[in-house]
Amino acid sequence: MPSNEFGKVFKISTFGESHGKAIGVIIDGCPAGLKIDSDFIQYQMNRRKPGQSKIVTQRKENDEVEILSGIFEGTSTGTPIMLLIKNKDAKSKDYSHIKDSFRPSHADFTYQQKYGIRDYKGGGRSSARETAARVASGAIAMQLLALFNIKITAYVSSVGHLKLDKNYKELDFNNIEKNIVRCPDLEKAEEFIEYIAKIKKEGDTIGGKITCIIENCPIGLGAPVFDKLHADLAKAMLSINACKGFEYGSGFDGTKMKGSEHNDVFIKDEDRVRTKTNFSGGIQGGISNGEDIYFNVAFKPVATILQGQKSIDKEGNTIDIQGKGRHDPCVVPRAVPIVEAMAALVITDHLLRNQFSKVEDLL
Amino acid sequence: MPSNEFGKVFKISTFGESHGKAIGVIIDGCPAGLKIDSDFIQYQMNRRKPGQSKIVTQRKENDEVEILSGIFEGTSTGTPIMLLIKNKDAKSKDYSHIKDSFRPSHADFTYQQKYGIRDYKGGGRSSARETAARVASGAIAMQLLALFNIKITAYVSSVGHLKLDKNYKELDFNNIEKNIVRCPDLEKAEEFIEYIAKIKKEGDTIGGKITCIIENCPIGLGAPVFDKLHADLAKAMLSINACKGFEYGSGFDGTKMKGSEHNDVFIKDEDRVRTKTNFSGGIQGGISNGEDIYFNVAFKPVATILQGQKSIDKEGNTIDIQGKGRHDPCVVPRAVPIVEAMAALVITDHLLRNQFSKVEDLL
Amino acid sequence: MPSNEFGKVFKISTFGESHGKAIGVIIDGCPAGLKIDSDFIQYQMNRRKPGQSKIVTQRKENDEVEILSGIFEGTSTGTPIMLLIKNKDAKSKDYSHIKDSFRPSHADFTYQQKYGIRDYKGGGRSSARETAARVASGAIAMQLLALFNIKITAYVSSVGHLKLDKNYKELDFNNIEKNIVRCPDLEKAEEFIEYIAKIKKEGDTIGGKITCIIENCPIGLGAPVFDKLHADLAKAMLSINACKGFEYGSGFDGTKMKGSEHNDVFIKDEDRVRTKTNFSGGIQGGISNGEDIYFNVAFKPVATILQGQKSIDKEGNTIDIQGKGRHDPCVVPRAVPIVEAMAALVITDHLLRNQFSKVEDLL
Amino acid sequence: MPSNEFGKVFKISTFGESHGKAIGVIIDGCPAGLKIDSDFIQYQMNRRKPGQSKIVTQRKENDEVEILSGIFEGTSTGTPIMLLIKNKDAKSKDYSHIKDSFRPSHADFTYQQKYGIRDYKGGGRSSARETAARVASGAIAMQLLALFNIKITAYVSSVGHLKLDKNYKELDFNNIEKNIVRCPDLEKAEEFIEYIAKIKKEGDTIGGKITCIIENCPIGLGAPVFDKLHADLAKAMLSINACKGFEYGSGFDGTKMKGSEHNDVFIKDEDRVRTKTNFSGGIQGGISNGEDIYFNVAFKPVATILQGQKSIDKEGNTIDIQGKGRHDPCVVPRAVPIVEAMAALVITDHLLRNQFSKVEDLL
Repeated sequence: MPSNEFGKVFKISTFGESHGKAIGVIIDGCPAGLKIDSDFIQYQMNRRKPGQSKIVTQRKENDEVEILSGIFEGTSTGTPIMLLIKNKDAKSKDYSHIKDSFRPSHADFTYQQKYGIRDYKGGGRSSARETAARVASGAIAMQLLALFNIKITAYVSSVGHLKLDKNYKELDFNNIEKNIVRCPDLEKAEEFIEYIAKIKKEGDTIGGKITCIIENCPIGLGAPVFDKLHADLAKAMLSINACKGFEYGSGFDGTKMKGSEHNDVFIKDEDRVRTKTNFSGGIQGGISNGEDIYFNVAFKPVATILQGQKSIDKEGNTIDIQGKGRHDPCVVPRAVPIVEAMAALVITDHLLRNQFSKVEDLL
Repeated sequence: MPSNEFGKVFKISTFGESHGKAIGVIIDGCPAGLKIDSDFIQYQMNRRKPGQSKIVTQRKENDEVEILSGIFEGTSTGTPIMLLIKNKDAKSKDYSHIKDSFRPSHADFTYQQKYGIRDYKGGGRSSARETAARVASGAIAMQLLALFNIKITAYVSSVGHLKLDKNYKELDFNNIEKNIVRCPDLEKAEEFIEYIAKIKKEGDTIGGKITCIIENCPIGLGAPVFDKLHADLAKAMLSINACKGFEYGSGFDGTKMKGSEHNDVFIKDEDRVRTKTNFSGGIQGGISNGEDIYFNVAFKPVATILQGQKSIDKEGNTIDIQGKGRHDPCVVPRAVPIVEAMAALVITDHLLRNQFSKVEDLL
Repeated sequence: MPSNEFGKVFKISTFGESHGKAIGVIIDGCPAGLKIDSDFIQYQMNRRKPGQSKIVTQRKENDEVEILSGIFEGTSTGTPIMLLIKNKDAKSKDYSHIKDSFRPSHADFTYQQKYGIRDYKGGGRSSARETAARVASGAIAMQLLALFNIKITAYVSSVGHLKLDKNYKELDFNNIEKNIVRCPDLEKAEEFIEYIAKIKKEGDTIGGKITCIIENCPIGLGAPVFDKLHADLAKAMLSINACKGFEYGSGFDGTKMKGSEHNDVFIKDEDRVRTKTNFSGGIQGGISNGEDIYFNVAFKPVATILQGQKSIDKEGNTIDIQGKGRHDPCVVPRAVPIVEAMAALVITDHLLRNQFSKVEDLL
Repeated sequence: MPSNEFGKVFKISTFGESHGKAIGVIIDGCPAGLKIDSDFIQYQMNRRKPGQSKIVTQRKENDEVEILSGIFEGTSTGTPIMLLIKNKDAKSKDYSHIKDSFRPSHADFTYQQKYGIRDYKGGGRSSARETAARVASGAIAMQLLALFNIKITAYVSSVGHLKLDKNYKELDFNNIEKNIVRCPDLEKAEEFIEYIAKIKKEGDTIGGKITCIIENCPIGLGAPVFDKLHADLAKAMLSINACKGFEYGSGFDGTKMKGSEHNDVFIKDEDRVRTKTNFSGGIQGGISNGEDIYFNVAFKPVATILQGQKSIDKEGNTIDIQGKGRHDPCVVPRAVPIVEAMAALVITDHLLRNQFSKVEDLL
């Protein structure tokens, strides 16, 4: 049953295993006539790639994206765009020890049970390496969104118990790429980095949160009932490896509020209808209302730790298992461009879907 | 663009407006040979229906489900099952005042902008009345799941700032239907009910949380990458009216944990592989591992309050708007069966999808 | 597995059995703002309905279409349109004799094998009664196409060995509804009618062909590779009960031609690029080129004959089976509006899909 | 809008242009545990590849299939299978003359109109080179079908006005690969080959027909209403380049028959229910009945001829256009494995879909 595809009209299909020959993605549904800046694709890949700083995994992959189809003389033709990323620094030997055993809180056990076979090298298909294909295709989606001036920005808003306690409006997004943890508050960034470094030294890992803001989203994206804009964003985020939760607008804190506090009063701001507050998070009835869309995404600590743990093998024997391989002590710095890419894919899909909501737009 | 359908192999398509002639649902993909207990469908409908207690809306609907197709002599035939629920107590006059104005934090504005027209009566399609169709179809999914002994239980775990601070394992689920707020802790239930009654008296509304547990889910449901079991649950929940957030397993609290604390060690329990702890929430790599699946769903306060508010009309004039109609002071008591229904639809879909994961199962 | 839905963006889902309470259809994806003429829907229903003439089945159904949702004050709202048609003249007693036996060339045997159960009354879901739902939803699609001046016309072009040997351009389509067999050549119509009447008297049935023309189809509908416009038309037609074949443009005769004869030379006709000949049938590379689209659809003789036949029962005993019930001696007169409806659904779907082929159309 | 994918549960997504870097396909939905024989894949590729004989195009492509993912130690893992075929002998210079002009009966004009841009080299995406990806993925489908003993055989049954007038049961399928035109009657094969050679010498092209037989198809594949097995076969065939028509079972000739002649009487053959005749073509009510499935596919003459033709350029000027490049004088010899591949994809999809038709099969 197909489950490696995302999107209804701007659809991506990804493939590839962590230690296979390559990973990649087909985009089926990109409109023709989009000028593609491949440097921008590579820029986004670099933000996600391993080995970029001292607080991420030291696997070395350049993650160079090769375009195999769908783009002619720099412009999309309306046919499938195929993006290929070869795997280079796959050290499969690191994984022979898990061939017959199940690492705690990994997908080894469930894949084995579901499929009766698994590519255990580097976690195979369950590896977050698959997200490189999302970032590559998301970078094309972003180039379409840029024509509409839609801007998507994600940043790290907590690491473990450490928390950035400012509203996104108080922050300078230009700071995000100025530090290796991708937090727009430079002081807080330092704290996060130090903490991750300490955790890494312990051979341990830590969770964290990412906040994402979508600015200039046109009114009308999203659909009633099942394909509410926030429902599609939730699925997109929860599909990212290690994600445990999603909230938008007032989120879980909104459960404590009264209607009289929570309601966003409509006001007229020059020609535009706006809301005074934005507890709705830019989405009402599943449809964007023109205000900023904002949401939080929770990530658990990485399961691979460089400490001894108990586990069992295929035969059910209790074993000692020791994390090997090269792993992230905390996913959030590298997950920032992934969150942005998935948000871009959702918004692009709904932007296109909204082309035929009204008969008058067709004529 | 279709957006009123949910599920890939056990698919529902809902239709209908709050004050139209009827609402309903087609189930396409229910296997043949399922004995249908229509009393059970009605039982679930009654748990969702308006007017059932003093803390819910007083609209009177019996929500009787008529089966128009797909069931022959009490058994499913493999053809589409059509369930029809007529609207009876629609007081459309209550809504003439919003024909040309936008209620704060409702979908009036976004529907009008997206479609250029809206059925304003009772909120039309944006009304939570649509969820009756979900509960009806979910009740059929549950009858399929019952053959596998899969059990889905939801309950209210917070109302406003009031919170049930017990793990689900300490609770007696038999208590849930013994009180009108649907909380398994009878003391806490009393607190919740009193608080909602007070909020109602103020003409205000309040948010809350629902916790849901799926027991006896077989190993292997869910799919790698985009259709992770929890990603589909997240989308299902966020598609429910007023939902603001979703977390499963360790959830947002898991972001504060270290890998060494969070990892669920595998153990052998008689013939079964189990985990010692269950921070994974029964899902690893997007696939169920046989442990309990549990998650929380956040609901905002209902937008309709019986207090005066400012808003604007279609022409952009500032107006005073006064909540009318019959509305819930808090959605969570009635949302319990909706959460269960959506969970049942997701699990049924993945149960069927898992039929052809392995070649050996086909032969 | 869902299989009762058709279309990707203008999608219909049908339900209902021949002798159940009702049949019907949900349209999900109709743009908002379409004025709906329900008389036109009924007009199309009447063209398909049983009992309309002496050469069709004598079952009496008015096939009145009730609109249950999605249309507000006569205009589509962008939400699902639900159309319900109640079954009235179901004489289920006529079918008790086939409860345990399999009628030759009917779906009794295959349904029983596939599902282990079947609603045998009137053939249940396998009855061509299901096509009433297609005609109803097709009538809404046609109202959308009318805004683009797209015109779909089908007619009977052969009955048994009798054949209308004229090109569609020589015919007066106004004659089609002037005779009960729906042939635009009135002389040929007489022959067809007489022949069907004779066949009927013999208790036998006969096959036939329908030709369909789509005029004023805009350039650009259809998609490369799998969703070629003619591939979707083929699937649409072959999904109609009793259909055995489809050909478009030069069709099967085109296999005998040379490229030098078959190629359609492009010419400039005032501002328009046209082709001198039209062996392509208005579609090149799967995409409409602005010329007339035309195709033929083959229908086999109805399987129910009023003659004794041998067959077997569930236990495998040889039995004599005698056709009962009220049946058509030839399907083509009533299939004309069904062919048109399916064509309208395909063209509408691709018309909407074509809205986002080019970036410049989005801006 | 995605249109480069085929299948619902065994789904392929193809990409690539005729003169781009590569073409290829992702298979999403292949069950785990299938042993893959890559020699067989290559064998099928060789049957389709250019340059294989004197009556096909002389482009030289080895069409070597590289497997980039989804197969681990020779066995499918349930994750996407990616098959890559690099383009080698692309002589793009041959195409500069059509950059700004439209070849008659090609897709140049419609692609340009639909997308505003086209990769004109070798026809880009509209080239039949895309079908190599279908053959590669079809070869994997066939390996799954082989486990069920399902056998798919296609052969050339007419070329131009020359026709093989024997029923498939009188033919020896072992002869098909013994001649370059792929006709099981060796005498007729000679005639076909000579005729094609003559046509080629004239710089012209010719159409033809392919007949396909599916043996040992289990009872129960296919679905009522829209996804009838023959409707999906029709779409599959019509999606092949140059295809103009499809008929199954009695086909167009069936329109001339009476019900009393056409009905297939059920008989008991040992333990099996069979039919005496098989005008149904192995499918009743859209569902396979266990008899042989057989159908015909019509192909038009190739549009590229090596003769001068009139056409127009982008500006609408009348021009002389001369066919260049290396092209087939007749598509049918190379289309045989394509027809088989598409049939295999349809049958595999429905074989998997049929896994959950009955509740009793689930338990």
